[in-house]
Amino acid sequence: MSSPGPVSSPGPVSRWWAELAWLGDPAVPPVAGVLIEAEGGRFTSVTPGAEPDGERLPGLTIPGLANVHSHAFHRALRGRTHAARGSFWTWREHMYEFAAGLDPDSYHALARAVYGEMALAGITAVGEFHYLHHGPDGRPYGDANVMSAALVAAAAEAGIRITLLDTCYLAGGVGEPVAGVQLRFSDGDAAGWAARAGAFRPDGSHARVGAAIHSVRAVPAGQLRDVVGWAADRDAPLHVHLSEQRAENEASLAAYGHTPTGVLAAAGALGPRAVAVHATHLTSADVGLLGSSGTGVCLCPTTERDLADGIGPARELASSGSPLSLGSDGHAVIDLFEEARAVELGERVRTEQRGHFWAGELLGAATAHGAIGWPDAGRIVPGAIADLVTVGLDSVRLAGTRPGDAAGAVVFAATAADVRTVVASGRTIVRDGHHTTVDVPAELAAALTPTPTEVGETRPGGTG
Amino acid sequence: MSSPGPVSSPGPVSRWWAELAWLGDPAVPPVAGVLIEAEGGRFTSVTPGAEPDGERLPGLTIPGLANVHSHAFHRALRGRTHAARGSFWTWREHMYEFAAGLDPDSYHALARAVYGEMALAGITAVGEFHYLHHGPDGRPYGDANVMSAALVAAAAEAGIRITLLDTCYLAGGVGEPVAGVQLRFSDGDAAGWAARAGAFRPDGSHARVGAAIHSVRAVPAGQLRDVVGWAADRDAPLHVHLSEQRAENEASLAAYGHTPTGVLAAAGALGPRAVAVHATHLTSADVGLLGSSGTGVCLCPTTERDLADGIGPARELASSGSPLSLGSDGHAVIDLFEEARAVELGERVRTEQRGHFWAGELLGAATAHGAIGWPDAGRIVPGAIADLVTVGLDSVRLAGTRPGDAAGAVVFAATAADVRTVVASGRTIVRDGHHTTVDVPAELAAALTPTPTEVGETRPGGTG
Repeated sequence: MSSPGPVSSPGPVSRWWAELAWLGDPAVPPVAGVLIEAEGGRFTSVTPGAEPDGERLPGLTIPGLANVHSHAFHRALRGRTHAARGSFWTWREHMYEFAAGLDPDSYHALARAVYGEMALAGITAVGEFHYLHHGPDGRPYGDANVMSAALVAAAAEAGIRITLLDTCYLAGGVGEPVAGVQLRFSDGDAAGWAARAGAFRPDGSHARVGAAIHSVRAVPAGQLRDVVGWAADRDAPLHVHLSEQRAENEASLAAYGHTPTGVLAAAGALGPRAVAVHATHLTSADVGLLGSSGTGVCLCPTTERDLADGIGPARELASSGSPLSLGSDGHAVIDLFEEARAVELGERVRTEQRGHFWAGELLGAATAHGAIGWPDAGRIVPGAIADLVTVGLDSVRLAGTRPGDAAGAVVFAATAADVRTVVASGRTIVRDGHHTTVDVPAELAAALTPTPTEVGETRPGGTG
Repeated sequence: MSSPGPVSSPGPVSRWWAELAWLGDPAVPPVAGVLIEAEGGRFTSVTPGAEPDGERLPGLTIPGLANVHSHAFHRALRGRTHAARGSFWTWREHMYEFAAGLDPDSYHALARAVYGEMALAGITAVGEFHYLHHGPDGRPYGDANVMSAALVAAAAEAGIRITLLDTCYLAGGVGEPVAGVQLRFSDGDAAGWAARAGAFRPDGSHARVGAAIHSVRAVPAGQLRDVVGWAADRDAPLHVHLSEQRAENEASLAAYGHTPTGVLAAAGALGPRAVAVHATHLTSADVGLLGSSGTGVCLCPTTERDLADGIGPARELASSGSPLSLGSDGHAVIDLFEEARAVELGERVRTEQRGHFWAGELLGAATAHGAIGWPDAGRIVPGAIADLVTVGLDSVRLAGTRPGDAAGAVVFAATAADVRTVVASGRTIVRDGHHTTVDVPAELAAALTPTPTEVGETRPGGTG
């Protein structure tokens, strides 16, 4: 992984006093009265049981949340794909349609607002699984990484860190060429992808780069090793959509005689730097391959509900050795508390048993910065990147929470609306529930509501 | 059903102008610029396409929400039963423990705060499935309905309507006597229940009374007809917990040779005034009995997740003829938007298909006041009870919503925190997201956090 270093210029010491804080160890419950100091974007001291000093943080303070799987532009589909009941295909049609219209400026504006929404939800770092690389008809832009740069700039302006997971996307399906808007995703072959991705130098210490294989559908098995090698050379994260829908498994078995997990294993793609996203429809052998190799699994339960993927074997994966992380993915909602509890609640409805995960384990999954190449974040300990999120315990949702139950109450009953203060890399980006530099609702509305002349007026009552 | 009548004393005409309003017909999308007038707690005129006049309601205005299934005191368990991972039995132990300590005063204080939380979530009427009738050891209070009266008073103070579903609870399981705190639930036999329940005269036009059979576990088959007859005599709603867990089905089959639905059908309990709560584990024959009799089904998805019940056949039930309604039940969360989308999203993960319910159908389920005996509410039409809920479309969750997508956006992306204005029976009870008469968070905290001397101090770190 990238080695630790300063994440912002050294400056005056910051000091906070958290009424109650969960410091990031899944097995240790919250502690009271924690004095926290930082300098240069990193924690310098963390002292429980201290007298109040510095900025007071009432409520439960936790490490910054990591949104390990994001497609920023999918935010445009929220609430819009359920008309006429909707289907997976309605959804994909809308998604492609919106993708077709984006350019570097409009994507920058949208992503800035979406990352602002993430900041408000307590997210201090995002893994952006980015495949919208090229211009209309697939023609590269003058700067072939201008879309990546737009996303990196958007994250900087929203105050969060980003891992740009540059995604290799070469085929419309196993053995099928890309077509339509997919032309914008493809670099022709893995060597083309590696050359373009390798040329990208993100602007800012808030950004790191990783690799992604879109899926075994979109990267032919024979080209997987190029992507794997690229990531290995850089000691960078390697993400991949895995077995989100049964159809992918069927196509993989038909073409290769192996499950997608088996195909990835054969290409050397599994291991501790790798993260399988979704991992919904797995065989026991798949679970074994993922767990025994230490491959991470990023669950995106609100998206997996929205797209009717199903419920993956979260407990089995974690118990087999796969560290879990979470992503808001398609951004049907952006709320990592909802994602965290959905992991446990999904297991409950699937197994008809309670009690699969401790609240601390779920908070651990929500703060798994290592999954996107920031192993030096996600804990409130000296030396770690100075990310803090304070969840107020005084809303109607959490009023009456006893200190000893705070971790469980936040995981099972908080919403993003309960986030009061967010510090990312030592900088306060959310104060009293408002972003300090971006007017997030206004920018979302501007980015998502084209003027009538652009798309024809949308009339109330038009689509149900 | 009870006949319409004034729900508050006649007074001056109230007038609102809704920027956008869904008037309550599932098949009709929101309309713009709706002038709404009310007098004496009922709508007198509703005019779409009107010029602004009166109080402006920016956002999407919908009818008041109906929380058809509530156990108010379960709110005390929110976030507290997940320690040491938790199990169904941890949960029930906590629930019984808390129930054991309640008296009419403390239950009144708690219910007032909980109903206040409901008001803030846009709920204008609650069906309170009430079985905590008696004092310690089951001794009736001097006024045997003092607990019912406490709940009715709490609803009045929170500004919402209540249907007190007086619950018959006679057995700890099929063939088992009540024990422990269950003694507080039992009236000895159905005749005892009917005599006590029949003596209750709720104070206020905001309250109506219905009957409930706790379940086929808690009311012996031979006594069901007494409860059914009581409800029929009064043309009152009759609710029953149905097949929430598979164990209930097994016990029913073993004792009676029929499923719980079959047992209820044989007792004449099914029909349009009846509401089956949960209906999770059903046979096709059960679905047919419920649907063909017009029996309503109240789904409580957030509770059914929390308690690991499973996912019931919502679409099949609705298509078979059972009108759906929603309840927050155990109050793991109080958010009927979350309940509404969970109906569709549950079907999606269960079937791996999208598109089971229209947004309008889900809003219809969330506003099904008829299921608790208020058929004259749940629509914004002249003559209906004047309930309004305005959902702001300017939060980060909903920013960028186009008018034509507003119903879908609210169902799939709003939270209770987006509710700005609530009018119940013509009275404004929530303004700008705050309750007009109850300090809900403070009252929740007071009711849920006993002083250290009462229960021994809860220390941070005590329970994980």
